[in-house]
Amino acid sequence: MSDKPLYIDNLQYVNWQPHHFQEMADGQLSAVHITICYHESFRETVTNFSTFNKWFEAYPDRLMRGLTGDDVREAHRTGKTALVFGFQNCSPIEDDIGLIEICHQLGARFMQLSYNNQSLLATGCYEDEDPGITRFGKQAIKEMNRVGLVVDMSHSADRSTLEAIEISERPIAITHANPHWWHPARRNKTDEVIKALTDAGGMIGFSIYPHHLKDASDCTMDQFCEMIARAADKYGIESLGIGSDLCQDQPDSVVEWMRNGRWSKVMDYGEGSADNAGFPAQPSWFETIKDFPNIANGLSSYGFSDKDVAAVMGGNWLRFYDENFGPKL
Amino acid sequence: MSDKPLYIDNLQYVNWQPHHFQEMADGQLSAVHITICYHESFRETVTNFSTFNKWFEAYPDRLMRGLTGDDVREAHRTGKTALVFGFQNCSPIEDDIGLIEICHQLGARFMQLSYNNQSLLATGCYEDEDPGITRFGKQAIKEMNRVGLVVDMSHSADRSTLEAIEISERPIAITHANPHWWHPARRNKTDEVIKALTDAGGMIGFSIYPHHLKDASDCTMDQFCEMIARAADKYGIESLGIGSDLCQDQPDSVVEWMRNGRWSKVMDYGEGSADNAGFPAQPSWFETIKDFPNIANGLSSYGFSDKDVAAVMGGNWLRFYDENFGPKL
Repeated sequence: MSDKPLYIDNLQYVNWQPHHFQEMADGQLSAVHITICYHESFRETVTNFSTFNKWFEAYPDRLMRGLTGDDVREAHRTGKTALVFGFQNCSPIEDDIGLIEICHQLGARFMQLSYNNQSLLATGCYEDEDPGITRFGKQAIKEMNRVGLVVDMSHSADRSTLEAIEISERPIAITHANPHWWHPARRNKTDEVIKALTDAGGMIGFSIYPHHLKDASDCTMDQFCEMIARAADKYGIESLGIGSDLCQDQPDSVVEWMRNGRWSKVMDYGEGSADNAGFPAQPSWFETIKDFPNIANGLSSYGFSDKDVAAVMGGNWLRFYDENFGPKL
Repeated sequence: MSDKPLYIDNLQYVNWQPHHFQEMADGQLSAVHITICYHESFRETVTNFSTFNKWFEAYPDRLMRGLTGDDVREAHRTGKTALVFGFQNCSPIEDDIGLIEICHQLGARFMQLSYNNQSLLATGCYEDEDPGITRFGKQAIKEMNRVGLVVDMSHSADRSTLEAIEISERPIAITHANPHWWHPARRNKTDEVIKALTDAGGMIGFSIYPHHLKDASDCTMDQFCEMIARAADKYGIESLGIGSDLCQDQPDSVVEWMRNGRWSKVMDYGEGSADNAGFPAQPSWFETIKDFPNIANGLSSYGFSDKDVAAVMGGNWLRFYDENFGPKL
């Protein structure tokens, strides 16, 4: 193994262009979980897979597929970045349970059961009512367990999330959110949810999307690290990682797409508002992909041990990948 | 390695039901190349992949994926059958070169560039004019070479086939046809085509579809073996295999679909005729999947050496799989 630390950012939705792949190297990232779907149909999602296939072909010395934990170790050893694909919604599987394995064959490793709204599988966190996991949802979780496609409940509602944790026979993830007790945003997660998640072996990735942060864009590194320290006390360091939710270089039209998809004729501002409708400014200490190592420095300065810094910055996600990507060993 | 022979049938289009998988075991088949597309769109073809995914799940002790030559060796060693997927047309890639790699990721290993008619890539053997490989076709062959999806020209016209052999930087295949000099059917291949194919390292799989046989359903094993012996003299034993084109248990509506797809409002009888429109009766020595070993016995009785029988019955296709499935080593 290289002496360099092994870093994983378990959620980015950058407006990917080739120069960002060099920024991943500058950010010392051995793996990034990349969102390739918000509301896309199966066919549209295949085109998104295909876009990355072209980049794997064009940048073989920089990028590789992240299908297993060992792929991430190989990326770390060879100085590459492994790309792990995920969906923030279940739209790619449409109404067809067979598409779960097909998407896994194409490289998907995380799938949210719902994105803000009710889906065919579960309820999103912006609905007024949360009837829990649907009939299709129960079967989809079982199939996701079988093939090793991780259930992600980042944008789902509480009851659905608690039921998903209960129904799933393998640990699940909340790839990008923070504790509600630290910053009571609708997208942040209650103590009950995080406790149930982590008690079942699941992982939470801490988000640096300003709407999820105390003091938003002005949140300091020290505040962020204090949140992690409190979470480690409550849930154990082994359940914690980073899922920055970085939306670098995205135009504001993309946040409209994320919030409104094709479902709404009335502007939905999601976590924003009419006078703060676009992407919010990032905190100064995490503006770009390259800034990822700043978090390690912040955690060290805050007083985390080297071992705990390594766990939060990548080691925990790596263990989770080993155990949850692909069929159960 | 097991002492049992390693048999490969490099083309079947059976009306697959679970009992056929046991027949594969009875037929001692370590691998079968299975057609999963004639005219299907990408989305329809994905459903066909998905159908087999369900069977891989349901019959793990009998079936496995055939993605590499080593998969076939594992199937042989463990008494399973490896299924190799192929398309008899390029319809699954639609107009999108990116779908070549996507289909390869899903398990496709052979793709015909055209099926009887003109396609976006090449000309089929029933067209009056054959303008050769198209602009898209030239790029598609290059991409198929890159990912290791074998070009199959079984149903293509002569000029297109000769051009495909020339353009392709890796050997190609005619998975199921016989020599035109033995039986001058439109689907059988000229000496010029087979010579160019095999000189470039390509393989031909001999067909037992009655329309491709001298004396059709009455063709004897001895006649079939004599054809193979003459072909071995002309092209070398190492380029020859079996691609039976067995359409066991298919209703006649399926041969109509094969011939007419969605493109024709006038009945096209293809190799048949108005008074012989359905599937023809198989020769008595190859009626079902289980009869595959009869061919080995026939070749031995005809006078082929054990080594040559093993080569034609599976060894040659296995070598071809090693060299042509997946990126070039």
